[in-house]
Amino acid sequence: MTAPRLDILGIGNAIVDVVAPVEEEFLAKCDLRKGGMTLVDEAAARSLYDAMPPGRESSGGSAANTCAWAAGLGAKVAYLGKVADDQLGQVFRHDIQAAGVHFPSRPLTGGEPTGSCLVLVTPDGERTMSVFLGAAVGFGEPDVDARLVGDAAITYLEGYLFDPPAAQAAFRRAATLARAAGRQVALSLSDPFCVDRHRAAFRDLVAGHVDILFANEAEICSLYETGFEAACEAARRDAAVAALTRSERGSRIVRGAETVEVAALPTTVVDTTGAGDAYAAGFLAAYVAGADLRACAQLGSAAAAEVISHFGARAQADPQELRRTVGV
Amino acid sequence: MTAPRLDILGIGNAIVDVVAPVEEEFLAKCDLRKGGMTLVDEAAARSLYDAMPPGRESSGGSAANTCAWAAGLGAKVAYLGKVADDQLGQVFRHDIQAAGVHFPSRPLTGGEPTGSCLVLVTPDGERTMSVFLGAAVGFGEPDVDARLVGDAAITYLEGYLFDPPAAQAAFRRAATLARAAGRQVALSLSDPFCVDRHRAAFRDLVAGHVDILFANEAEICSLYETGFEAACEAARRDAAVAALTRSERGSRIVRGAETVEVAALPTTVVDTTGAGDAYAAGFLAAYVAGADLRACAQLGSAAAAEVISHFGARAQADPQELRRTVGV
Repeated sequence: MTAPRLDILGIGNAIVDVVAPVEEEFLAKCDLRKGGMTLVDEAAARSLYDAMPPGRESSGGSAANTCAWAAGLGAKVAYLGKVADDQLGQVFRHDIQAAGVHFPSRPLTGGEPTGSCLVLVTPDGERTMSVFLGAAVGFGEPDVDARLVGDAAITYLEGYLFDPPAAQAAFRRAATLARAAGRQVALSLSDPFCVDRHRAAFRDLVAGHVDILFANEAEICSLYETGFEAACEAARRDAAVAALTRSERGSRIVRGAETVEVAALPTTVVDTTGAGDAYAAGFLAAYVAGADLRACAQLGSAAAAEVISHFGARAQADPQELRRTVGV
Repeated sequence: MTAPRLDILGIGNAIVDVVAPVEEEFLAKCDLRKGGMTLVDEAAARSLYDAMPPGRESSGGSAANTCAWAAGLGAKVAYLGKVADDQLGQVFRHDIQAAGVHFPSRPLTGGEPTGSCLVLVTPDGERTMSVFLGAAVGFGEPDVDARLVGDAAITYLEGYLFDPPAAQAAFRRAATLARAAGRQVALSLSDPFCVDRHRAAFRDLVAGHVDILFANEAEICSLYETGFEAACEAARRDAAVAALTRSERGSRIVRGAETVEVAALPTTVVDTTGAGDAYAAGFLAAYVAGADLRACAQLGSAAAAEVISHFGARAQADPQELRRTVGV
């Protein structure tokens, strides 16, 4: 086994976010489940878009956000995901490449348009998302580059990838290839309802194929269908490392008998979009640099605090500054 | 002459902004004139886009910004401008309509893509713009709806419209129709270099066809090729009303023998994109409501202060709140 040439290879649904502020009543009027992610078809996405206020577009996608953040933090990062050969696909490609992430995936031609996520932000900073997967459903096994997986110390997979059927197979192939190459697999559970949709498959994966598990409280409780404390112990048993985030209550990291608790950093919450993605990036950037679990969690918390203090899921401040603050 | 059914009809180059923060050195490296707007072709736009950091897309266009702001302030507003039948065109259409602006212009099919403006924001909040006009060059005389012009109390034209050749003719037709219908014509000079490109035509227009002139210090000095005080007197002579803005030094309004000075509101400058557009919107929204010149300028200043306190040219706060603050 040679030394990895990449720190992180992220694989996920490549989508562009359309972010707009709304009042609580708008969610009720449009029958949207607050705080959740709902998969919608193109017609439903268009209908909601027509009803919502003016938006701002920026590149998103959970694992893509993590990759952009991790590259900003100095990690060597590549990303695989499917966009179309259209304007939003060009925007996605530009943004992730400009963030310093290698993005070799070829665009889908003649199929669905680039996927989008309508992100509605209520005054409390909570985001409610409606995702039209679009070209992302075209991502499958042939898109997983075995050489790239073998080159990466960690292959990072977003749970949302379980929603497009062909991506499930790609997901399993990437995990298998990474393990076969002696590399590590990280998984973010993404969303409690995503976990609910694919619980058995996720439990199987976590128990058998995941080295580093990221989940928030709702997700880990959904995975094990129990309370937080019991879920932590189940995660301790199943995953080599589990980083479990609890919003303003910070995060708990479990690894074998070891438990680390790290506080959240105080900040003014503007938009929680991308908080978990940024946390994972901070954690992993420190992890690949050989930091201890506490420092990994601290860099995760610092990244999450930065991203929730403004609209949008990518960094506005210089991520390297956060790294200096944490001392990693 | 019947009472106007619209307060403001804006006509301009319909474009989508791509905003990214850069350091000063980036402008030098890309040979960009800081603070200015440069017209570029598609290849140059692509080359700059490739070199710039990740961006955020939001609908822009000078007169379109003014229209979105004015509608937010409660005015009845329509807008004419040309986008393509593509994703960015759909974004532009959604955003201006969601802002409450009537937008009857049909998209261009089979031609250039929707125009875009690469907005580079330096740490001092100054923006440097590179515009690819795209579909906006397809706007011409046939796109000026005589009924709509006759319906509007004020037809508001952006100086940038003089750049695409066919739009110049549309510009003159709109001004002529408005005057013939007994309505008023407002003009924003847009940019000192735009004035430089079309000085004789602008002077002719201002002297003969403009009721309300908007210009900042650099623009009015460029128009008359003289210092600010002399330029103010020239504007007083040529335009019925001239609203002349001076960044942190506030604005001066001249109308015949009358002179009004209004201070700028203190704020933290994040991004000056759209400051002049928001000022014009505040001024005009108060003007059509019958406010005196001082109140018009105060609402203009309040809108400008809001827009420069965050990234992007459209409002983030509720514009109606500004109106209540000023008491208009």
